[in-house]
Amino acid sequence: MARIAVDMQELSEKISIVSKVVPSKVIKPILGCVLFDLNEKGVYLLASDLETSVKARLNCEYEGLGKFAVDAKVLYEVVKTLPNDVGATLELTPSNLSIECGKSKFKLSAVDPTDFPEVSLGTIGASFEIEASLLYNMIERVIFCAAVDEFMRNLNGVYWELGNGFLRLVSSDGFRLALAEQRLPIRSEMGFLLSLKSMKELMNVTRGCGEKNLRFEYDGKRVGIMVADVETVVRVVEVEFPDYKRVLPKAFKTKVVVSTNDLIESLRRTMVIAKRGSESIRIEVVENVLILSSRSPDYGEVNEEIEVRKEGEDIIAAFNPKFLIEALRHIETEEVEMNFIDSTSPLQMNPLDVEGYLYVVMPIRIV
Amino acid sequence: MARIAVDMQELSEKISIVSKVVPSKVIKPILGCVLFDLNEKGVYLLASDLETSVKARLNCEYEGLGKFAVDAKVLYEVVKTLPNDVGATLELTPSNLSIECGKSKFKLSAVDPTDFPEVSLGTIGASFEIEASLLYNMIERVIFCAAVDEFMRNLNGVYWELGNGFLRLVSSDGFRLALAEQRLPIRSEMGFLLSLKSMKELMNVTRGCGEKNLRFEYDGKRVGIMVADVETVVRVVEVEFPDYKRVLPKAFKTKVVVSTNDLIESLRRTMVIAKRGSESIRIEVVENVLILSSRSPDYGEVNEEIEVRKEGEDIIAAFNPKFLIEALRHIETEEVEMNFIDSTSPLQMNPLDVEGYLYVVMPIRIV
Repeated sequence: MARIAVDMQELSEKISIVSKVVPSKVIKPILGCVLFDLNEKGVYLLASDLETSVKARLNCEYEGLGKFAVDAKVLYEVVKTLPNDVGATLELTPSNLSIECGKSKFKLSAVDPTDFPEVSLGTIGASFEIEASLLYNMIERVIFCAAVDEFMRNLNGVYWELGNGFLRLVSSDGFRLALAEQRLPIRSEMGFLLSLKSMKELMNVTRGCGEKNLRFEYDGKRVGIMVADVETVVRVVEVEFPDYKRVLPKAFKTKVVVSTNDLIESLRRTMVIAKRGSESIRIEVVENVLILSSRSPDYGEVNEEIEVRKEGEDIIAAFNPKFLIEALRHIETEEVEMNFIDSTSPLQMNPLDVEGYLYVVMPIRIV
Repeated sequence: MARIAVDMQELSEKISIVSKVVPSKVIKPILGCVLFDLNEKGVYLLASDLETSVKARLNCEYEGLGKFAVDAKVLYEVVKTLPNDVGATLELTPSNLSIECGKSKFKLSAVDPTDFPEVSLGTIGASFEIEASLLYNMIERVIFCAAVDEFMRNLNGVYWELGNGFLRLVSSDGFRLALAEQRLPIRSEMGFLLSLKSMKELMNVTRGCGEKNLRFEYDGKRVGIMVADVETVVRVVEVEFPDYKRVLPKAFKTKVVVSTNDLIESLRRTMVIAKRGSESIRIEVVENVLILSSRSPDYGEVNEEIEVRKEGEDIIAAFNPKFLIEALRHIETEEVEMNFIDSTSPLQMNPLDVEGYLYVVMPIRIV
């Protein structure tokens, strides 16, 4: 038997972090569990979906050693409903985990911890450190462009490229692409793909870590991320990410600078019609006016005008408005640059006067 | 052709009110429309699902008369995405409704208005006036107990009882019952059932009307509600509501007064276990302690204690915790009264020292 005395806030926070990795359906009960590992170094909470494993150190007082497993969802719901501003006492035995907190007493059934998957990194091939919020923002800016379909394995994730003093994240679903990069003193060169699910887990563990230091390690097969008492180990997807550099457009003929917010608002309005028709909108830039339009055979048509600054030729092209809006929502500058080549080439959008990220959207053929 | 000049805020608000009555699937296109009726008295927006009809007066300038219909969902989305703080010009023809607002231009396809259903009240048999927010709160406190199943026609709604100087609203799904009443100078006696869908529509048109005066009219088959430029006509459901008075418990043997919030919090925790087992919790009151407990064969058990004030005998009974929580969330007093007869009789809950509403919950048999 072992015993833990802990603040509810600490317990709730750590269980919330580790239990999110547990899949909604599991083959074996142990894979639906959080493992309490009480050893000489401290108390650790662990959860894993075999691809991603999360281990969090619990700041607490404890006596007794051993491993104890309990259903993650029940445990999560229990700690979420208990008051946050008090202490709790946990008693762990091979058959039960009891939680006593104020006048509440839970006695949860324990699961045999023997088969809990152990995941750890091998010999470290590369490592770097970065501010947690910086990495979080980079992920946030690219992840929405990844393919959602799990069967498109080479696009269902985020590609990491390290080298030449840069960390670069890229994702694409074949119709659009997002790229974020950050200067980092990295000497080794490497590239690997992490699945969308793993990336969401990484966002989850880095969220709210602010300026805390994050340590990154790579052993050739797995990536380890250590930040704020939490260690996440993610398996790399062993398929090749497409050669994205060939898609990046060059030699632009038209550069348009437009208010990010005005463009989002106009796109939202044109979408009301576009989604009831061809799902496409037409963008026309004539002199210093950008005209958005769309037409639905049954419901009518819409026409929007926005004043812009333009360099280069006039242009006409058509796009899926959803892809434009999603990219614009991740551009934080007041103005955005739209860089066109012609009506059949990809459009590049990037924040005005800010380096480090860009979006590329394929046009739709104008019939 | 006709023309309307209107503030976007006014247009958006009125379209939002009338378009909510339009069902998501319609047999004929005209039933999916908002009708613009421009006559000598003013401009009116109308929508109907045949059971409920809503008519809102649009405060605007206009020229030209006639009736024009346009798809409600598209119109709603268009006005929601246009800026709120400007004016708009509408041009209505038999084939199009054009909206011009700033640099946005919509041209929406019009629908032939001929078959738009006309609904109006007959000779008024009874009428009264009430503050809109008062009626809104009464509905809000009972509506969640109505049966959701549309085939249970006699319980899928709210029963209105007028007479003896009272307006009383009652709803029940067979397992629980809610009752709200309000003193009103009503002489005539009557009772009728309005469907859950109609009641939601009434909540929608009375929401945010605050202390405005609401006029109620009843012609024996339909109910009319007039408030703040909006007139709603609802058809009465022609089935008998059960004799609810027989269910109301009397001659209580135990009265327990407990903190509403403590009870809600304890119920939320016991539900974590209860929903994984028999969906029931056990309530035991011994001396001045209320003990909540539940057990799940696979996941464990929970035990909660709350201090209470008690008059009468100790009691043990079992309930569906969901029904208790839902009722408690509608009790605004800090303390709630629980009135028991015995473990097989309905439990009555009501706010402490506040008259006018109560909840009755059937117990579950303790095995």
